[in-house]
Amino acid sequence: MRLEKLRELMADQELDGFLVTQPDNRRYLSGFTGSSGVLIITTETQAVATDSRYYEQVRQQCPDWDLIEIGYDFTGNLLEMLRERELGGRRVGFEAADVSAATLHAWERALKGRLILVDTQGLIESLRMVKETEEIDKIKKAVALADQAYEYIADWLKPGVTEAQIAWELETFMRTRGASALSFESVVASGPNAAKPHARATERAIQVGEPITMDFGCVVDGYCSDLTRTVCLGEPADEQYLRVWQTVRQAQEAAEAGARAGMTGEAVDKIARDIIKEAGYDQYFGHGLGHGVGMAVHEPPRFSFTFSGEVPAGSVMTIEPGIYIPGWGGVRIEDMVVVGDDGVEILTTASKVAVLS
Amino acid sequence: MRLEKLRELMADQELDGFLVTQPDNRRYLSGFTGSSGVLIITTETQAVATDSRYYEQVRQQCPDWDLIEIGYDFTGNLLEMLRERELGGRRVGFEAADVSAATLHAWERALKGRLILVDTQGLIESLRMVKETEEIDKIKKAVALADQAYEYIADWLKPGVTEAQIAWELETFMRTRGASALSFESVVASGPNAAKPHARATERAIQVGEPITMDFGCVVDGYCSDLTRTVCLGEPADEQYLRVWQTVRQAQEAAEAGARAGMTGEAVDKIARDIIKEAGYDQYFGHGLGHGVGMAVHEPPRFSFTFSGEVPAGSVMTIEPGIYIPGWGGVRIEDMVVVGDDGVEILTTASKVAVLS
Repeated sequence: MRLEKLRELMADQELDGFLVTQPDNRRYLSGFTGSSGVLIITTETQAVATDSRYYEQVRQQCPDWDLIEIGYDFTGNLLEMLRERELGGRRVGFEAADVSAATLHAWERALKGRLILVDTQGLIESLRMVKETEEIDKIKKAVALADQAYEYIADWLKPGVTEAQIAWELETFMRTRGASALSFESVVASGPNAAKPHARATERAIQVGEPITMDFGCVVDGYCSDLTRTVCLGEPADEQYLRVWQTVRQAQEAAEAGARAGMTGEAVDKIARDIIKEAGYDQYFGHGLGHGVGMAVHEPPRFSFTFSGEVPAGSVMTIEPGIYIPGWGGVRIEDMVVVGDDGVEILTTASKVAVLS
Repeated sequence: MRLEKLRELMADQELDGFLVTQPDNRRYLSGFTGSSGVLIITTETQAVATDSRYYEQVRQQCPDWDLIEIGYDFTGNLLEMLRERELGGRRVGFEAADVSAATLHAWERALKGRLILVDTQGLIESLRMVKETEEIDKIKKAVALADQAYEYIADWLKPGVTEAQIAWELETFMRTRGASALSFESVVASGPNAAKPHARATERAIQVGEPITMDFGCVVDGYCSDLTRTVCLGEPADEQYLRVWQTVRQAQEAAEAGARAGMTGEAVDKIARDIIKEAGYDQYFGHGLGHGVGMAVHEPPRFSFTFSGEVPAGSVMTIEPGIYIPGWGGVRIEDMVVVGDDGVEILTTASKVAVLS
């Protein structure tokens, strides 16, 4: 089914063959989870070319695919492999954002002009935007585990622990309960550190009365989650905090209420941005409202002022407005949602409170 | 000093400028640890071009470098940046193994033929082969922490724990004692799983009498370690085990005794391979004897039948012969060494025993 859709895209671009190198795309199409290999897809055939470490694995994971036992010299065998699949003289697409210039030039030398390599970008990523039911089920597991980790850490937090200790506590919780990895290196940013949207966890000890932003997620069954909450431990030391927090929350609620399939990414972004603008904080919301999440934690489409395309039904997205004031700190609140024709289904259940008492 | 050496290599290749994109290389030359940015190096000047997330960080980490505040449109500003640095009409090198075909093509369009982009490969990697004293000091810290983790786990191991539990125990030990990350996802392979050199840790419970291979390492101060030991928990169930283990150990000892600066990678590999061959196991030693370790856990040079170049003094290398018998299991023993003119200094101190009793 995924392969049939790719073949339709290949036909649109007049491609007779396609080389898939990007690891998530390789896995998405073939099921192959090895670290090395190239898919060779024609209008009629599909094959995995890989080295001896993975022959047995391909047979198990990809029963409907041919296995090409290519060893370690893919490039030296490329022309022969493509000719055997009747691609001599034809147009063969490759993933230009994944293949290095050095690899492309080596391929071109090996192919001696006997067929045409065609730059493509984002073909398989466009298929991956619309999630199947079983993909959404896997994402829900990853979301639920991050939600549980948040409730655990909200209970565990106390003055004096460091950002790095919080990050490790979150990681330990998720990795010992079914996560194969983190979606990304966790952000734990307290006090003025929270003014940087992507601050890493430092040795700074958290204090009563200041905002703490935690942004983290995990991978379960190959699919990612992404969750952010900002809380203040005890009475906020700064009167601005609650105003900023409420503004961010209202912006998020409005976007979650207003988003639906077929809207452009910039239109959804604008719902939240307008509320932040009304409150006078628009210069402090520098990033887009959200991004697709799936096998990768950041993937198309986007809810962003830079994304004019429509967001299709079945997209799984973050909705994460934020306000970051240099020298003061910041607030971000992030949920994950499934986009539907009549609105979004909110997957995230982690509690939302401005103050932990 | 590093920069001066690069400028000598640039002169050899008749390059007037050089664009550095590979993250480890960027950090090696400039000290900049951010996730995004390009170094622009000319015969006289050096600059970091990056986005607003990193302006302050560049000022702190790279006091001798110009900061080019380029925002998020590097490509759109590329021609102007290069002209300002008097590179119009000149030859500018780039790292062809790091730059994607899509990026290269976008750069070429933006430059409109006004200067010549020149493919390069391995220039900065060739400098990184020879470690400075302060780099070796950092590597020693990473090696020592992996050694401690091994002694801990050798004491902790017991029948019934799973490979995944062992991997997590190792990770927890290192990450809570100063490691910023693992060097790579740990290998813990027991029984027949140990026949695969790069098996990941599974839910298999380890049993008395069978070989267990553990291959892991950590990152401290930006430098990696890499350590492998194979042990049997209690009396080996198979009489072949001790013979295989002793063969691997003798191959390693011979290579450690025989290696010195100026030998080719294949000559050092052959010392170990000959001993394994004499014992009749040469068809079961498929990989090279060792690889360079530094900022990356696998970097040039190599002790390998595929590496005909000389290994210079100051290289930090693994020496890791192995024998892998399908269906039975495998043994690998890996140390890290510093290569010197009169022989190698062995950094690894983790105990070497065939049987844990």
